[in-house]
Amino acid sequence: MNRAFIFDVFGTLVDWREGVATIVGSAFAEHGVTIDAYTFSDAWRARYDPAMERIRAQGRAYVALDVLHRENLDATLAEFGIENIFGQDEREALNQSWEKLPAWTDVHEGLDRLRLLGFVAPCSNASVTLSLRLARFAKLNWDSIVGAEIAQNYKPAHEVYISSCKTLGFEPKNVVMVAAHNDDLIAARSAGLQTAFIARPREYGAAQTVDFTPTSNWTYVAKDLIHLAEQIEILG
Amino acid sequence: MNRAFIFDVFGTLVDWREGVATIVGSAFAEHGVTIDAYTFSDAWRARYDPAMERIRAQGRAYVALDVLHRENLDATLAEFGIENIFGQDEREALNQSWEKLPAWTDVHEGLDRLRLLGFVAPCSNASVTLSLRLARFAKLNWDSIVGAEIAQNYKPAHEVYISSCKTLGFEPKNVVMVAAHNDDLIAARSAGLQTAFIARPREYGAAQTVDFTPTSNWTYVAKDLIHLAEQIEILG
Repeated sequence: MNRAFIFDVFGTLVDWREGVATIVGSAFAEHGVTIDAYTFSDAWRARYDPAMERIRAQGRAYVALDVLHRENLDATLAEFGIENIFGQDEREALNQSWEKLPAWTDVHEGLDRLRLLGFVAPCSNASVTLSLRLARFAKLNWDSIVGAEIAQNYKPAHEVYISSCKTLGFEPKNVVMVAAHNDDLIAARSAGLQTAFIARPREYGAAQTVDFTPTSNWTYVAKDLIHLAEQIEILG
Repeated sequence: MNRAFIFDVFGTLVDWREGVATIVGSAFAEHGVTIDAYTFSDAWRARYDPAMERIRAQGRAYVALDVLHRENLDATLAEFGIENIFGQDEREALNQSWEKLPAWTDVHEGLDRLRLLGFVAPCSNASVTLSLRLARFAKLNWDSIVGAEIAQNYKPAHEVYISSCKTLGFEPKNVVMVAAHNDDLIAARSAGLQTAFIARPREYGAAQTVDFTPTSNWTYVAKDLIHLAEQIEILG
């Protein structure tokens, strides 16, 4: 088995928006907060990339995504004027919503079939511990976990892709990066990996504006993970 | 799930001696070599710890165990005067015998049951890629892979245990190191981990002289992995 598939997770394999909004919505209902849980979740997520960018480009030392999520949660609560509603334990529980995200419906069959064709591992910006817990919740069976924490940097920094291949013991040309985000694949390709694009047109709900279609000639383009597995099964 | 179990692999989970001797024996038979395959495998394995010690204590930069195994294979072939029999491809195939080791009979049920009680990962001196391939061969289902390569050093160096806990995101006190070797557990305990001893009295065949019994009051002592799971299931 001389191939590995590595996967973006948030958006590509799991529906972070639905998962986070479900837990946020319950917490809001309990406290009588009437802010829309999806609106809040989108605002929380909007702080994700800028927080990583401070590490990628601006010299902040690597801290795990769990820490960034928590800082971003505190900032988002303040943004909505509800910073005095939730105690530390409740904030921790809200932060753990990122460990409790449902897989898209094609993912279990797709991963099982890809696993017969190569090793499989997440290459996510999630920490290893977040990946472990999310994998148990969403029933994702990995051979190992690679990604941001092992590389001590965040995608799309090249070193995350390179470190992931090196850790798994594969040349980049024998590794397929699977993602629903063209930007992720641009970086993976320039690091020497093969690329597979899967559209997730509902990732950002009705407000989604990008990543409906592939923006380049990726190695594979598939409508979902099962379709990707079918293509690679045929090619062998 | 606030606990992790990390495992020694060679000897504790898989029968390296039987696995290596099987593949060595076939290669010897093919070339009419009459040296006993177990004797050869034992001699190959005897070079394992000294090779790691040159990295742990003598300043050689970390190289993966696959590299050490290969160097040791070449030296062992020379030791037995058969260095001219096997070409490079055959030596590579012999070296890959370490990826094709059978699990002891209690391991599948034991691991499945422990996996309900905590996250499970190998903490081995094997490289990640060797661990990946061995896991597929021996049907070991891991949550992730930690150990020597992530730490860039070899057990029983403390940093391997510390790095493994840190990577998984657990305090050492919430991690149980499971091994058939008292030395491994001495090091794990002094790094702050819980310890579980499982006797593997056939690991070295009839010549085995150590590790028949626990030499200290380890957190758990069990006759096999199923027995360990039973104890922890009762304690909760």
